[in-house]
Amino acid sequence: MITHTAFPPEPWNIRETSLDLEVLAQSESVFALSNGHVGLRGNLDEGEPHGLPGTYLNSVFEFRPLPYAEAGYGFPETGQTVIDVTNGKPIRLLVEDEPFDVRYGELRSHERVLSLRDGVLRRTADWVSPAGHRMQISSARLVSFTQRATAAIAYEVRPVDGPLHIVLQSELVANEQLPAMSADPRAAAALEAPLRSEQHSSHDAHARLVHSTRASGRRVGAAMDHVVECPADVRTGIECWPDTARLTLTARLAQGQPLRVVKFLAYGWSSLRSVPAISAQVEAALTLAQESGWEGLLAEQRQYLDDYWARADVDLDGDAEVQQAVRFALFQVLQASARAERRPIPAKGLTGPGYDGHAFWDTESYVLPTLTYTTPHAAADALRWRHLTIPAARQQARQLTLEGAAFAWRTINGDESSGYWPAGTAALHINADIADAAIRLVQATGDEAFEREAGLPLLVETARLWASLGCHHPDGAFRIDGVTGPDEYSALANNNVYTNLMAQRNLRGAAEAAKRHPDEAAGLRVSDDEIAAWTRAADAMFVPYDDKHGVHPQAEQFTDLPVWDFANTGPDQYPLLLHFPYLQLYRKQVVKQADLVMALYKRGDAFTADEKARDFAYYEPLTVRDSSLSASIQAVIAAEVGHLDLAYDYLGEAARMDLDDLEHNTRDGLHIASLAGAWIALVAGFGGMRDSGGSLTFAPRLPGPLARLTFSVLWHGQRLCVNVTRTEATYSLEGGDPVELAHHGETFRLTAGQPVTQPIPSAEPGPRPSQAPGREPVRRRPGRA
Amino acid sequence: MITHTAFPPEPWNIRETSLDLEVLAQSESVFALSNGHVGLRGNLDEGEPHGLPGTYLNSVFEFRPLPYAEAGYGFPETGQTVIDVTNGKPIRLLVEDEPFDVRYGELRSHERVLSLRDGVLRRTADWVSPAGHRMQISSARLVSFTQRATAAIAYEVRPVDGPLHIVLQSELVANEQLPAMSADPRAAAALEAPLRSEQHSSHDAHARLVHSTRASGRRVGAAMDHVVECPADVRTGIECWPDTARLTLTARLAQGQPLRVVKFLAYGWSSLRSVPAISAQVEAALTLAQESGWEGLLAEQRQYLDDYWARADVDLDGDAEVQQAVRFALFQVLQASARAERRPIPAKGLTGPGYDGHAFWDTESYVLPTLTYTTPHAAADALRWRHLTIPAARQQARQLTLEGAAFAWRTINGDESSGYWPAGTAALHINADIADAAIRLVQATGDEAFEREAGLPLLVETARLWASLGCHHPDGAFRIDGVTGPDEYSALANNNVYTNLMAQRNLRGAAEAAKRHPDEAAGLRVSDDEIAAWTRAADAMFVPYDDKHGVHPQAEQFTDLPVWDFANTGPDQYPLLLHFPYLQLYRKQVVKQADLVMALYKRGDAFTADEKARDFAYYEPLTVRDSSLSASIQAVIAAEVGHLDLAYDYLGEAARMDLDDLEHNTRDGLHIASLAGAWIALVAGFGGMRDSGGSLTFAPRLPGPLARLTFSVLWHGQRLCVNVTRTEATYSLEGGDPVELAHHGETFRLTAGQPVTQPIPSAEPGPRPSQAPGREPVRRRPGRA
Repeated sequence: MITHTAFPPEPWNIRETSLDLEVLAQSESVFALSNGHVGLRGNLDEGEPHGLPGTYLNSVFEFRPLPYAEAGYGFPETGQTVIDVTNGKPIRLLVEDEPFDVRYGELRSHERVLSLRDGVLRRTADWVSPAGHRMQISSARLVSFTQRATAAIAYEVRPVDGPLHIVLQSELVANEQLPAMSADPRAAAALEAPLRSEQHSSHDAHARLVHSTRASGRRVGAAMDHVVECPADVRTGIECWPDTARLTLTARLAQGQPLRVVKFLAYGWSSLRSVPAISAQVEAALTLAQESGWEGLLAEQRQYLDDYWARADVDLDGDAEVQQAVRFALFQVLQASARAERRPIPAKGLTGPGYDGHAFWDTESYVLPTLTYTTPHAAADALRWRHLTIPAARQQARQLTLEGAAFAWRTINGDESSGYWPAGTAALHINADIADAAIRLVQATGDEAFEREAGLPLLVETARLWASLGCHHPDGAFRIDGVTGPDEYSALANNNVYTNLMAQRNLRGAAEAAKRHPDEAAGLRVSDDEIAAWTRAADAMFVPYDDKHGVHPQAEQFTDLPVWDFANTGPDQYPLLLHFPYLQLYRKQVVKQADLVMALYKRGDAFTADEKARDFAYYEPLTVRDSSLSASIQAVIAAEVGHLDLAYDYLGEAARMDLDDLEHNTRDGLHIASLAGAWIALVAGFGGMRDSGGSLTFAPRLPGPLARLTFSVLWHGQRLCVNVTRTEATYSLEGGDPVELAHHGETFRLTAGQPVTQPIPSAEPGPRPSQAPGREPVRRRPGRA
Repeated sequence: MITHTAFPPEPWNIRETSLDLEVLAQSESVFALSNGHVGLRGNLDEGEPHGLPGTYLNSVFEFRPLPYAEAGYGFPETGQTVIDVTNGKPIRLLVEDEPFDVRYGELRSHERVLSLRDGVLRRTADWVSPAGHRMQISSARLVSFTQRATAAIAYEVRPVDGPLHIVLQSELVANEQLPAMSADPRAAAALEAPLRSEQHSSHDAHARLVHSTRASGRRVGAAMDHVVECPADVRTGIECWPDTARLTLTARLAQGQPLRVVKFLAYGWSSLRSVPAISAQVEAALTLAQESGWEGLLAEQRQYLDDYWARADVDLDGDAEVQQAVRFALFQVLQASARAERRPIPAKGLTGPGYDGHAFWDTESYVLPTLTYTTPHAAADALRWRHLTIPAARQQARQLTLEGAAFAWRTINGDESSGYWPAGTAALHINADIADAAIRLVQATGDEAFEREAGLPLLVETARLWASLGCHHPDGAFRIDGVTGPDEYSALANNNVYTNLMAQRNLRGAAEAAKRHPDEAAGLRVSDDEIAAWTRAADAMFVPYDDKHGVHPQAEQFTDLPVWDFANTGPDQYPLLLHFPYLQLYRKQVVKQADLVMALYKRGDAFTADEKARDFAYYEPLTVRDSSLSASIQAVIAAEVGHLDLAYDYLGEAARMDLDDLEHNTRDGLHIASLAGAWIALVAGFGGMRDSGGSLTFAPRLPGPLARLTFSVLWHGQRLCVNVTRTEATYSLEGGDPVELAHHGETFRLTAGQPVTQPIPSAEPGPRPSQAPGREPVRRRPGRA
């Protein structure tokens, strides 16, 4: 039934050994290259066939109207949507006048390999044209981590059988035609011809196009230059129009003679700079790339990734698929964030137009924890982006008649772009998620400059939001009514446990940070009274509990609701939101994604071990995982409460989300948060790492199939390595001051160069909880390697 | 600040003594004429100036898309909106080439009078043209109650000072240009040029236009013919184009010489019949009207209204404004419904395009109770219309994955047209409101044929809805979670008391009706088991109670929510929905309109007198009356708990809603439910009439300023008259079998021709409850007469 690309489980490569046009769009997402600033979908060099062409620049978007059949006060009327910018990927080949098109002639072999070590996508094809001319085609493509504005393609063709007339066309194409998008409301709205030409120029093998967007005022420059190598004579010609630039190379190649072109691409955008300034900017980037040359760019890329893997790699024995998937995940998290540099990290990274290119709470709740311990500067940059959006968030809070800042549920530029408020604007927990990420980053890095400049303002503004949103009930308890938690199959409930506990953390974190930085706090007009009010609210935070069932209700009254009729819900009726009205979903006990279980993880300090076990057992049968954000968190708590095999199954689901296209929408882009969740499932799940108490604690324990798990986290700049086997865990610290840690509840001190080994106690879980019929995670076959 | 037309408090007339162009649109609504089938706004004869031109035919609408920024499963994608059909009102006058336009020249006097006895709108004007020519102009207009398709205008001009050349142009105009509508989401969406010409023809003084709508397939015919009387020579010419027909009359009138034209109009529409059939239909109606002649139509109209007032009039001493207002209200309720004949009664009747011309729960909950006791055949027709929409309602229930029928929250043709589901589709109480209206009608009329044909199916389908919507909690209680009650400042709450109690009445009513009509019930596949399940659900219906506050929460947890910050809400911030987001409204104790208080009225049998007093006192300070549906119900309960002066103030607000333009949107059409509410406030409020126990009970008690209140209700076809003074009430029955009644809790038997007089006990209310600052009802000055 499910068609998807199958990638052999190599430890460092994603390899596609034949081309399946049915799943082309999915593979374009998997093979997307990005550095967080520029993103190129993995479209074929020749442009067609394609699933969905895509070239993105972080924060280059267009406005679009948000219509309402019946509007309400404060509903946002304008949204943002990512646009497909000038495509610099196309290199078309014509063999004796016949275009190279995999749909014609005979494709004897076709292979694409994404190297996670090199950061390069390589392709080889052996093709016989309809007229019988056989060609070997190879290309390599990279988006540079070290040169933010730069991408490059090395393309080579070689006639196999005899002399042939060859034409290569290398292009820049603006406003390329896009296929109609899905009717799924979650997919992005396509915008036709969003770019208005402002300048086009060309000379020799070089061309440049400058465009701007109509309403959002983004000016985009794209330039290309080429180096051609060929033993035969090559004639070159360059042409340029407002939306297209084309270098044409013509040669007659003898049998086996190669024609090789290296195409350098540079991109730049600004909402402030002039056409000449943008032109100069992309030319500078292009010049630098050409000076580095293809080999230089390759070497820089490899060095950048060697550094990354040295600090971030997760290495394991016993499951080659998971090994591959977690490296793919870490690579994609890096691609989404490395050079985002105070721009958002969208839910799909720069791999596709899904969710309109918006960033959500996913970033702070899934991506930033991973980045905090592997690439903290990228986590800091993402939070500094949030900090830049404080003016918009303050305005949104005023719109909601609240104090402080209410950060956008979905956005590119900071303005709320959510068109269905009960599952958007009302999900105010995003503010506590941002605060949580800021607290974590400061804890893990000790970066006081960040805390003073960005962390403290974020904490103060969000604490003010909670203080004005909630209120003390006559009985003293601090209530937060009428908001939506992470579970999107509930809405507008009172005292969502996750929200309240995260708000508590937010309020306490703000109070502590303000006390640590009294001068900066005074600059934000924080008074002692305000700090006292935050502390009072946090101390009195209401956390509902259902005595009858002996569990925490996700929100007040949740456990009184009727349970969803799972027995009469067919497997083809998932995801439920595409088959049932919100009216029914909201009024039943059915959970789209970890919500109370998310609280068990993020605020594990607020629950006893018994409560965690009972709560997890209660919510498992209700949680249908219609969101890609769920499995990883369920894995973490399943592991904590001892259901290691279940955790292992959920890990598989989170890690393989896109490689196996489990939600059937990888075509629109990768699920960056689920990918980050694979790291979370391993490190917080089987590594048992927690950080909510201000220090790191571990409770590692492996599922049967895994013989070993080794991971590292950065703590105050030092690499802390944890090596877990079935029986023991060894902790080692690379340098720096000694660190206080805990292993299964026992604290110990770890000194650099003096590894500590601890035994792993056995788990005694109760019976494995069941899931809704048809929604059980796929059981991973033990020992798959 | 508030500008509105002031109408002197005449008992049987609405008189406007001068023309204020600032409030022209409001006066056009007040002076609208309708019979429930054809509606003409009170536009000036000469067409301009106008506030909002409007001519409506019940159920002639066009589809319009319902867009969503983020759609969800089952959101309706197509809505309906009433359209302005061919305008037959224009009679333009030119005096020596100068158009009669009140904005030019000198308007020495201008008066319009709507006679509630005659059902005629009369106008006189004394105008001096810019060139100094003085004219007397008079017109009279009626929409016939007796001839459903017919309207007529008698128009007369007379030169005052000397001989003048006069031109009259009498027109039919399709697709007339409309002003841009308000940005208020509650106002209607205007549709440009909705009519496509299919036929136009003319001869002599006669013309006919046939059009059809583009998408909804309505074919509309309009025809006019004229009778001209003039002592001078009159030349006539007729012209006709696809969208316009014009009769031109030319005469030279001597001083004082009248030119009089009677214009007969006929309308017809169908979604099935052909152009020739529609043409024939309107010609037939026109012929009949011409045979009756102007005087004949006048006489029929008067006779029809004499009959109406004989059975429906409410007569009182002590408040001339209320006297006038309640007659205006009864007249408008009749205009909205008299000849609707199995078509909806829209919230605005046929007086304006507000709310897109949709019918809501208002009809069953406010208009039908009034009609049931004054014009029961119209109430039956309206319910038969609901019965005709059962197929659409069943489909909507399936869409919601529910059983039975879910009637549209807002609609013209039966299909859900609600674009914001939390305050639309989720307000499932409309189904119980329909059932309640059907139960009441059968009780009051004993109309078994109606019950078998329409009442029983309505009850069965709605009972099935509730049985599938609610469920028995493990503790046995029948819960209805996640729906919206009448108060639109709350949404998606659990166990809304009003909804649950009305559903209980619905379930019991269905069980009883099914037992009364076993054959028809069997035809609807009602089994004994199903009846037993309905009864079980009704008996176990959960009605939450807040022990701490000693009141009923509007819905579970409502009384735990923080109270709205009324102290910091300015008078200019009402209605709140235009100044605050739903996010804030929903999470606070603030009530747009009677909800729990509505339950105290409609299900008074479910509360003790003490509970009513406490509940009313609790909700008064929370209820801001941002809906025109609130004041009348608050009047009823205020009267019941003894706050007679407060009830009197609320009566004034309900009754004067449109005459005083209290909500500043009378321009879009009259508030028919609020007008019906004026009758309810008097009869159920000061008359204390209740019918929820199957028989009529009264507890009359007058507020200080009212010396006497006399009203009649029809009970099983007999007129039951109640005459209330400050000290006693006299009940009399016109004919038929004796009736069991109650007076202030004491039952008695009333026999035809044998009036019974009972003393009125004094009330002992507690302190007058307060309202939110700035939202106190206007205190009616006692003794205003």
